[in-house]
Amino acid sequence: MPPSKILVTQGGGPTAVINQSMVGVVLEARRQAGVSAVYGARHGVRGILNEDFVDLAQETSHNLELVAQTPSSALGSTRDKPDAAYCHKIFQVLQAHGITHFFNIGGNDSSDSTRIISEEAAAANYPLRCIHIPKTIDNDLVLNDHTPGFASAARFVAQAFAGANLDNAALPGVYVGVVMGRHAGFLTAASALGKKFPDDGPHLIYLPERVFELERFLADVKTMFDRHGRCVIAVSEGIHDASGQPIAAQLAKDLERDAHGNVQLSGNGALADLLCEEIKSRLGIKRVRGDTFGYLQRSFIGCVSDVDQREAREVGEKAVQFAFHGAGGRSSGSVAIKRTGTYSVDYELLPLADVAGKTRVMEDEFISPCGTHVTDAFRLYLRPLLGSGMPDAFRLRPNAVPKILNRG
Amino acid sequence: MPPSKILVTQGGGPTAVINQSMVGVVLEARRQAGVSAVYGARHGVRGILNEDFVDLAQETSHNLELVAQTPSSALGSTRDKPDAAYCHKIFQVLQAHGITHFFNIGGNDSSDSTRIISEEAAAANYPLRCIHIPKTIDNDLVLNDHTPGFASAARFVAQAFAGANLDNAALPGVYVGVVMGRHAGFLTAASALGKKFPDDGPHLIYLPERVFELERFLADVKTMFDRHGRCVIAVSEGIHDASGQPIAAQLAKDLERDAHGNVQLSGNGALADLLCEEIKSRLGIKRVRGDTFGYLQRSFIGCVSDVDQREAREVGEKAVQFAFHGAGGRSSGSVAIKRTGTYSVDYELLPLADVAGKTRVMEDEFISPCGTHVTDAFRLYLRPLLGSGMPDAFRLRPNAVPKILNRG
Repeated sequence: MPPSKILVTQGGGPTAVINQSMVGVVLEARRQAGVSAVYGARHGVRGILNEDFVDLAQETSHNLELVAQTPSSALGSTRDKPDAAYCHKIFQVLQAHGITHFFNIGGNDSSDSTRIISEEAAAANYPLRCIHIPKTIDNDLVLNDHTPGFASAARFVAQAFAGANLDNAALPGVYVGVVMGRHAGFLTAASALGKKFPDDGPHLIYLPERVFELERFLADVKTMFDRHGRCVIAVSEGIHDASGQPIAAQLAKDLERDAHGNVQLSGNGALADLLCEEIKSRLGIKRVRGDTFGYLQRSFIGCVSDVDQREAREVGEKAVQFAFHGAGGRSSGSVAIKRTGTYSVDYELLPLADVAGKTRVMEDEFISPCGTHVTDAFRLYLRPLLGSGMPDAFRLRPNAVPKILNRG
Repeated sequence: MPPSKILVTQGGGPTAVINQSMVGVVLEARRQAGVSAVYGARHGVRGILNEDFVDLAQETSHNLELVAQTPSSALGSTRDKPDAAYCHKIFQVLQAHGITHFFNIGGNDSSDSTRIISEEAAAANYPLRCIHIPKTIDNDLVLNDHTPGFASAARFVAQAFAGANLDNAALPGVYVGVVMGRHAGFLTAASALGKKFPDDGPHLIYLPERVFELERFLADVKTMFDRHGRCVIAVSEGIHDASGQPIAAQLAKDLERDAHGNVQLSGNGALADLLCEEIKSRLGIKRVRGDTFGYLQRSFIGCVSDVDQREAREVGEKAVQFAFHGAGGRSSGSVAIKRTGTYSVDYELLPLADVAGKTRVMEDEFISPCGTHVTDAFRLYLRPLLGSGMPDAFRLRPNAVPKILNRG
């Protein structure tokens, strides 16, 4: 058998644990007999196009372990979404370098380009094994219990809302936190795990799985504000009206701003600011504050789930094991996480076509009937993923001192 | 001697460690002989006005220790800035309840109201000891080496920029992070502690201590982007032009928006979004992203400096010790942190008038001559405050693989 040559890439938005998967591939590949090269491509598939490879056989195990614990993509990433022509060029480079095993760590787009490259190789009768390794903070890959990277981002969101709730309790008002997730609300829903006491926020959660109606939103906020004297709200950046139009675009239009010009409607603070303005002007509430979690939620260093780290490492390691020792005779595929207990997981290799380019959204059983909160099923689903050492919030108990002056 | 009655309040913006100070007061007060009551007022000075007191002598030590580790103000806070009439009413309530010792945890405004209340009591010949306990993430209290709450917020900012830098390196472009601090740039400057390798961001830091010029800013960004292929920028929300006008107001005006109407210029994402639009339109850079750290930086649960926790506890404890055992015969005062070694601190009780209502800004020795970064003196000043267990970032070492096709 000719020696094997390994190539690993990282694509799409970085996560806190994507380097665990890369290091899982590298260390496991270096253990395999007959491996003559372990390369990484710089900045994902673009790095393949440019033949921009780094020799990972020359990296120390010690540094690899430290890189594994560092968030974001150590090889660099890309937003390129390869079409068939792009994939063909990529395949030519893989062929020139004699790559036998291609490991692509990424989300939906990456799974799809892995599939196309795999098909290119088959058509050319070139023996290339293509393994997609799951990664996305959006948790929107089908047939996976969850995806590496989601748990750490979810932990950030839960901790952020736990803190925002305490802040809002100290200085009451309305707080709007906008969370990433265009189509799937998992990350926004994670805000519910920041709630401890019955009157804690988030009091309302708006997900892209449900149609957003401004009038109902304002009524919901008023109800909660009247009940608690304050209101903490989690909003997905992907909320939209019944026609599918993003709410940010709709509000910007209502305010007679140029929605197509300078004002970008995502990746900035527009949605939070626009919702806050509606609450202020329509409900007459004075103290209204909005935060857009932006890049903090996926890149913050020092807020990571140990469960997420372990599983991200394992999907990388398993990818190599599947590639070298087969998985039901499948030569290519997508590694998927299956939940086998409370809490334990195992991994399997699915056909690329079963995962590629498909989007999972939150299951109905995870969303409360009112549509503005999550169910216990979701809490039970998410809690073990957040890992150990979750910070907890405590309160003083009420022991009121009788009034003397009582001037009210 | 008649029994002593203690009242403690928390004012202004919450911090991650303000409850440490409250608990420091309560536990130390409960240890003092002759103390018959330990009260807390709900929502700061407003709670005094409303006689909204909680009996902290009935709280368990165990729960107090857990509350101490919980961020935000467990007693609630207020933004009320008492004038002389308000302070007079407060004094009447303190007198009615026979309060002998008043401990007010807060920033500049709190130190000033403590001073006024102390003077009211003296004028009325009422024996009230008034102690101001320092707290502010802005680090802008004079005569303090630093203030409790700053270190934990600074740690959040440093960790956030360490992560944002890694994200920006993986997907290159321009990143703008807007940090709290209207007058003092300490918290924005803390972003520099997220930098490890020479080409890491933040590449540029804009502080309210220096005049902000848009043209120079754009030129700076262009220089860094040309040099690194990317640029990470830390911006204080308080940046202003030579006339003192906030930059957000100036940019909003340039864009012909209503700066006095619906668009609020702070506490939202406007400044980051406006700066990003300038960079995109003027420099033609495509990938430009802005985050406004907002409330996350002061309320996030699970990102705290152990040094900050310890000192916040100690200023509360020392406040009671100063009040009961005197400090150079001073009956009232403001507790201040003094640095005595690398790294160690001690505390002293300063006259209230020396601290009250004064604002410290960053010393010139902390700002680099170019005005857009910090000096080593600042790094040495800040590093010990961030505490133990700061996460670290690691890179793959460059080991390029020779090209074969070389079509690049």
